[in-house]
Amino acid sequence: MMQCQKMMAVVLDVVTEFIDGLVETYPGLQYLDGFPQVKVVLRADVPYAKYDKVAVISGGGSGHEPTHAGFVGEGMLTAAICGDVFSSPPVDSILAGIRAVTGPMGCLLIVKNYTGDRLNFGLAAEQAKSEGYEVETVIVGDDCALPPPRGIAGRRGLAGTVLVHKVAGAAAAAGLSLADVAAEAKSASEKVGTMGVALTVCTLPGQVTSDRLGPGKMELGLGIHGEPGAAVADLQPVDVVISHVLKEILSTETNYVPITRGGRVVLMVNGLGSTPLMELMIVAGKAVPKLQLEHGLAVDRVYTGSFMTSIDMAGFSISIMRADLPILQRLDAATKAPYWPVAVDGHRPPAKIPVPVPPSPSAKSDEPRSRPLQLNEQGQILEAAIEAAANAIINLKDSLNEWDSKVGDGDCGSTMYRGAKAILEDIKNYPLNDAAETVREIGSSIGRAMGGTSGIIYTIFFKAAYTQLKGSSHSGFTSKQWAEALAASIAAVSKYGGASAGYRTLLDALIPALLVLQKKLDIGNDPSTAFLLSSEAALAGAESTKHMQAQVTTYY
Amino acid sequence: MMQCQKMMAVVLDVVTEFIDGLVETYPGLQYLDGFPQVKVVLRADVPYAKYDKVAVISGGGSGHEPTHAGFVGEGMLTAAICGDVFSSPPVDSILAGIRAVTGPMGCLLIVKNYTGDRLNFGLAAEQAKSEGYEVETVIVGDDCALPPPRGIAGRRGLAGTVLVHKVAGAAAAAGLSLADVAAEAKSASEKVGTMGVALTVCTLPGQVTSDRLGPGKMELGLGIHGEPGAAVADLQPVDVVISHVLKEILSTETNYVPITRGGRVVLMVNGLGSTPLMELMIVAGKAVPKLQLEHGLAVDRVYTGSFMTSIDMAGFSISIMRADLPILQRLDAATKAPYWPVAVDGHRPPAKIPVPVPPSPSAKSDEPRSRPLQLNEQGQILEAAIEAAANAIINLKDSLNEWDSKVGDGDCGSTMYRGAKAILEDIKNYPLNDAAETVREIGSSIGRAMGGTSGIIYTIFFKAAYTQLKGSSHSGFTSKQWAEALAASIAAVSKYGGASAGYRTLLDALIPALLVLQKKLDIGNDPSTAFLLSSEAALAGAESTKHMQAQVTTYY
Repeated sequence: MMQCQKMMAVVLDVVTEFIDGLVETYPGLQYLDGFPQVKVVLRADVPYAKYDKVAVISGGGSGHEPTHAGFVGEGMLTAAICGDVFSSPPVDSILAGIRAVTGPMGCLLIVKNYTGDRLNFGLAAEQAKSEGYEVETVIVGDDCALPPPRGIAGRRGLAGTVLVHKVAGAAAAAGLSLADVAAEAKSASEKVGTMGVALTVCTLPGQVTSDRLGPGKMELGLGIHGEPGAAVADLQPVDVVISHVLKEILSTETNYVPITRGGRVVLMVNGLGSTPLMELMIVAGKAVPKLQLEHGLAVDRVYTGSFMTSIDMAGFSISIMRADLPILQRLDAATKAPYWPVAVDGHRPPAKIPVPVPPSPSAKSDEPRSRPLQLNEQGQILEAAIEAAANAIINLKDSLNEWDSKVGDGDCGSTMYRGAKAILEDIKNYPLNDAAETVREIGSSIGRAMGGTSGIIYTIFFKAAYTQLKGSSHSGFTSKQWAEALAASIAAVSKYGGASAGYRTLLDALIPALLVLQKKLDIGNDPSTAFLLSSEAALAGAESTKHMQAQVTTYY
Repeated sequence: MMQCQKMMAVVLDVVTEFIDGLVETYPGLQYLDGFPQVKVVLRADVPYAKYDKVAVISGGGSGHEPTHAGFVGEGMLTAAICGDVFSSPPVDSILAGIRAVTGPMGCLLIVKNYTGDRLNFGLAAEQAKSEGYEVETVIVGDDCALPPPRGIAGRRGLAGTVLVHKVAGAAAAAGLSLADVAAEAKSASEKVGTMGVALTVCTLPGQVTSDRLGPGKMELGLGIHGEPGAAVADLQPVDVVISHVLKEILSTETNYVPITRGGRVVLMVNGLGSTPLMELMIVAGKAVPKLQLEHGLAVDRVYTGSFMTSIDMAGFSISIMRADLPILQRLDAATKAPYWPVAVDGHRPPAKIPVPVPPSPSAKSDEPRSRPLQLNEQGQILEAAIEAAANAIINLKDSLNEWDSKVGDGDCGSTMYRGAKAILEDIKNYPLNDAAETVREIGSSIGRAMGGTSGIIYTIFFKAAYTQLKGSSHSGFTSKQWAEALAASIAAVSKYGGASAGYRTLLDALIPALLVLQKKLDIGNDPSTAFLLSSEAALAGAESTKHMQAQVTTYY
């Protein structure tokens, strides 16, 4: 089907194979071993013929997954009768389902208002009653696309049916009698209205997609089996579409949802099969304020997801149900049905909170983060070293660009130049007598000015060194401490940059430099010698990259 | 985007509007008020800077919904940092998220292995550490499509990352230290492998879909941002594709998932955006036996759904994680994250159970359901009446067909004829001395032979009458009881057929017949007169349909 059509072409019976996967995924579900005719998914924990609560059974044609089988579970459906794709299930399979889960409390059949389902479920209900079962039936027609007919005729059962399943399932789980469960289901079915909008028509397995809807067209008030909608219109912006749909559902002329301004509702935004969650959430985010502002309604719950689909149709439907405390209690009641949305109830805090401000500079740093009036010896050395390094980079700008143009995009020198210039501009404010804080400020200068991937890498280099150094003394660092800071910087660059030795990156210079520095300090060389030898190792490491291959890496 | 492209074209920022809808749907989630730059979704119940557990933070480019924001909730992620579509989030927004939820226990950043994410999360981590936060980072690269590189480089973070989120979130919720949470996350990330198969390329908002993949082609081992896969191949049957993907993930050469025959795994079947649940379940249902039979692995859990998508891409990915008891406990631990699948754990009963056989005939019916040796008076009357009615229908066959051809498909007479013939064939076995059981048998004859919608409707008619009659005496029914049976039949046909008076159906004859019958019996007319007047009312009712309009109805 859909784009997977050819891949799925070998699948003989999509419905039975769907059920196989469903019960593999959810150990709380079982099915009746009557494939391919009898396709019934039921709770694995309900004893045969002895269930001590009202069984709630629904079903119909397949192709609407997760409806119906995905809503089987304690607190919702006891069994789901699955027909073939878009075909009502045969009477025998409905009867098999009734017999499998119905105990002395009886069963409620919830049927979507399609002739095939009404008749097949109806006959099964009458047959079951003649066998001695207590059976009630509630027919759901929540469609708001067509003008009001007499009674329920003409109103199709759409996604609002899922809300009726939940209300009935919760009422049954609470131990109510069949008459009471049926009454709650019927009442819920009379409080909900649904309307859909599609951008494409669905593809039946093994068939080519209908091109009924051309590009730039949408269909309003469609059915869930690819039936034509009430109207085809030019595509409109989503805001306009949502406003129109809400107006139709809440029309005071049809009074399909019996509610007036000031009332309370629950909202369901339902994907029709291939609509990404992002788009459904955008619809939900727009529908809520429209309900509040344009219709004066309080929105108590929002259910957003793909609940009753039409195979791979693109689009969504909106359902509105009038809410009151008893309905909300049923909707909020716990269920083990896999596809009933969780975490939608509970106290609603403010949706957004302020971005926390950065903490003030660490309490440990008691010196102000600006240039001290007088530099101490280490401060003077640090200033000289920073300026020398920055100037060396500035002088190399053109050469770096030229070398980079042979393997990259030729901007390496310009990027490094921006960082070095920023350091020379900012150095007048560096707290140079505090080496750790100065290293941190170098990172900030680079982060502000350099840009690009290398800007981030050098910023990480200096931030990691700062974190390593900051715990130590302010009055001056030992050579070993500087070596440890270099080690921390290299580890961070390697980890976040995703490279290590031999990847033809700056690490091929830094790693040998660190190793030589550590070794020379360990064997007692004086620091100047150790740093000199370390820098020679860096140069040799850089030269060694000439013959390396750049490694595979990942990207955005 | 996708088919909704034009409808969504007015949406300025799909990510911020997605977040609006998400927090409307899930009251347990909040976001930082730093739109449009800072897009951070976080748990509403975590106090600022005082959270007493390790915060688990993830994020990355958007377009993978429900990843990452849909996995925020107690027991899973504490915050999700959302970038623009397919773009790494900026450092400042990551930092804002860290500052908002991190308390004294510190935070773990779980980062998918993309250069942009590694660097931005890395810099934010180093910056946060420099501010005094305890921060650990685990980088996930579960991609199995490419040959093993050195270290993690080149292995992209895919849907297996969601399993790592769950393990880390559960470890943090259990109160473990940052080092221990990070160690569990790292260990989990080293046990999971993923590979994807796509049938289409995704559509970026505001752009046209790439036609890189022609019809009849599929892409194996693709990335989740529309990056080209490891190979493009001709579409294969889904069985072949799944076998290939499992073999690649479990390759002993790469040893990406460190497991051998006899081991235990969990399976995740992940939809890439526009793949219907039915297809994902079909994949899951085929993958489980293949893992068992072709690879000798026990499958402890199956997670099937759309967890990490690529906007509207069609296809799926499979992830396999080596399972052991500690990992299963983390995966099974309760969470309030909205999109972590529920009901996937627990005792696994047999997947299928036998179809229950119909109960034997009601214990109340102590007479055998076959023709009695001797008919009593009522039995004789019943036989004569049934035969007369059936013969009347048989004689009307051609007329009924002719009349029907003017408004329908011209087979009404033939259909009715089949039912009447079946009754005349079966009557020799009817238990005629028991009127209720005889009515039931008439329904069975019709249900067996008549077919079509009217077959179901007449079967319902007789089954409902039986259920009404069966409680009463066997030895003979009063006229009032027959009238009550007719009323029950009419109610059932009206309910399941979806019609009532005035719809131009058989009810327009039956309802007046019932009303007259009841009225005449009530005022004390003798039964023969009452039935005669009733049949005249039926005739008049049938005539009255000449000028009626057929009503809208619903169909499959």
